[in-house]
Amino acid sequence: MRKFCKPKALESFVRGLKARRKTIGFVPTMGFLHEGHLALVRRAQKENDAVVVSIFVNPLQFGPKEDYRRYPRDLRRDEAILRKAGVDCLFAPEVKALYPGSFQTEVRVRRLSTPLCGKSRPGHFAGVATVVLKLLHLVAPGRIYLGQKDYQQFKVIERLTADLNLPVKVRMCPIIRESDGLAMSSRNVTLEAPARREARVLYQALLKTGSLIRGGERDARRVQKALETALKAAHGARVDYAELVDAETLLPVVKLRQGSRVLAAVAVYFDKTRLIDNLLIRV
Amino acid sequence: MRKFCKPKALESFVRGLKARRKTIGFVPTMGFLHEGHLALVRRAQKENDAVVVSIFVNPLQFGPKEDYRRYPRDLRRDEAILRKAGVDCLFAPEVKALYPGSFQTEVRVRRLSTPLCGKSRPGHFAGVATVVLKLLHLVAPGRIYLGQKDYQQFKVIERLTADLNLPVKVRMCPIIRESDGLAMSSRNVTLEAPARREARVLYQALLKTGSLIRGGERDARRVQKALETALKAAHGARVDYAELVDAETLLPVVKLRQGSRVLAAVAVYFDKTRLIDNLLIRV
Repeated sequence: MRKFCKPKALESFVRGLKARRKTIGFVPTMGFLHEGHLALVRRAQKENDAVVVSIFVNPLQFGPKEDYRRYPRDLRRDEAILRKAGVDCLFAPEVKALYPGSFQTEVRVRRLSTPLCGKSRPGHFAGVATVVLKLLHLVAPGRIYLGQKDYQQFKVIERLTADLNLPVKVRMCPIIRESDGLAMSSRNVTLEAPARREARVLYQALLKTGSLIRGGERDARRVQKALETALKAAHGARVDYAELVDAETLLPVVKLRQGSRVLAAVAVYFDKTRLIDNLLIRV
Repeated sequence: MRKFCKPKALESFVRGLKARRKTIGFVPTMGFLHEGHLALVRRAQKENDAVVVSIFVNPLQFGPKEDYRRYPRDLRRDEAILRKAGVDCLFAPEVKALYPGSFQTEVRVRRLSTPLCGKSRPGHFAGVATVVLKLLHLVAPGRIYLGQKDYQQFKVIERLTADLNLPVKVRMCPIIRESDGLAMSSRNVTLEAPARREARVLYQALLKTGSLIRGGERDARRVQKALETALKAAHGARVDYAELVDAETLLPVVKLRQGSRVLAAVAVYFDKTRLIDNLLIRV
């Protein structure tokens, strides 16, 4: 596995791949890798000649009061995991390599960035869009792989690439879960043991929502209330949001139309740790 | 000359060039071509295997009270000019091809977009940055050519491509002028005859500014005042701005430091027509 910290070195490696007409699959991450990331890597390996993984905890997508400093990091462990997984190239730049003092460009995907996580994390998706666009220019992949856990992020990047005519296919991979259903996340390690046990409430509440709708409930407000109530039952859970939105626009749905696709999406704090999860439901 | 209106068709033409390892030079324009544009084309031809010119009056870079509708257009004439000039490809999309209803992405280069034209045209450079980024993705050139008349635009695009790690070189070409010194611009045809005669004041005032500084004047405020006064002497001239700024940051200069590069930049209305011009000065 090749490892680069400098953009220039990565670009020259990528030029080499292009010259040999290799297709490139790209998996952007913030590191502290888990099975969710590895599922993205394996899918990328299946569909491309070469796979590039980036590890970069992007300060631009953290608010001033968020957990940028606390975000878990272990580059040496991540490197070993990727090497073992047969990844071709790891790009792990330092902050100042991507954001020198002269940096002043911002990329926003307006409407899709506003609801859900956008409401409680203003600027978050502008930070995501900006760094992913930079990485897409550096890696120049034919396909980029994103996890469904960050569904809104996927929609933002999908829209970004379409709006800006970027020649890349955006692929979404299913959520990978712990044995009790908790969606895998690098932030899970920051949960204290009691909170970790309670945290399975996110997936359980989402499953109940799915059952309700499959059972014939069509009043979105009632479904949303049930979802919120289920979450609040967990000890120490502070619900940031619990919503039922259109899977394309991410706007709230009022009536659940037969045949439509909706997203049940939740964000819940346990102490300082904010967890998210979601479920796509065909009504 | 190949002509495309559809992004997909252009992309496939560009893929063909890349497959044959041809280098691409790109000249983005809003059409109604003049010698200034052709100077960009000739430079692009000298430095690249193939030249792509785009013609697109970009609604995103016009304010609601600006001259988007009045902006002069003559695609048939432009096409003939480009064909005669030996351009390889013209891309002339319709508005809805670049901005379908789903479009919602905005790109901003913050600090460089704020002064000068950014002050009187809020949103203008975000519109420019957004469309140029789209065009750069579609044309995928090794070099893009921009005129010095729109110096701030050049600086914004130069910064944009560096900030976003786009693998393109940004080239600036000198201002091409009419025989009386007026900088060539598609908007010049919208001037009434008396205003057209007065309009040479822009360049004359800039030349005086250059002389003042070469003559030893180091007080930027006095130079700026002289520039403004010279412009106001013209009948019917409404000065939008007349400034002396650092050529890199575009921020106002106070003292003219020996060896520094400054930009004298002006924007002047004659009736509804807004003209701009500038002069780079080595102190």
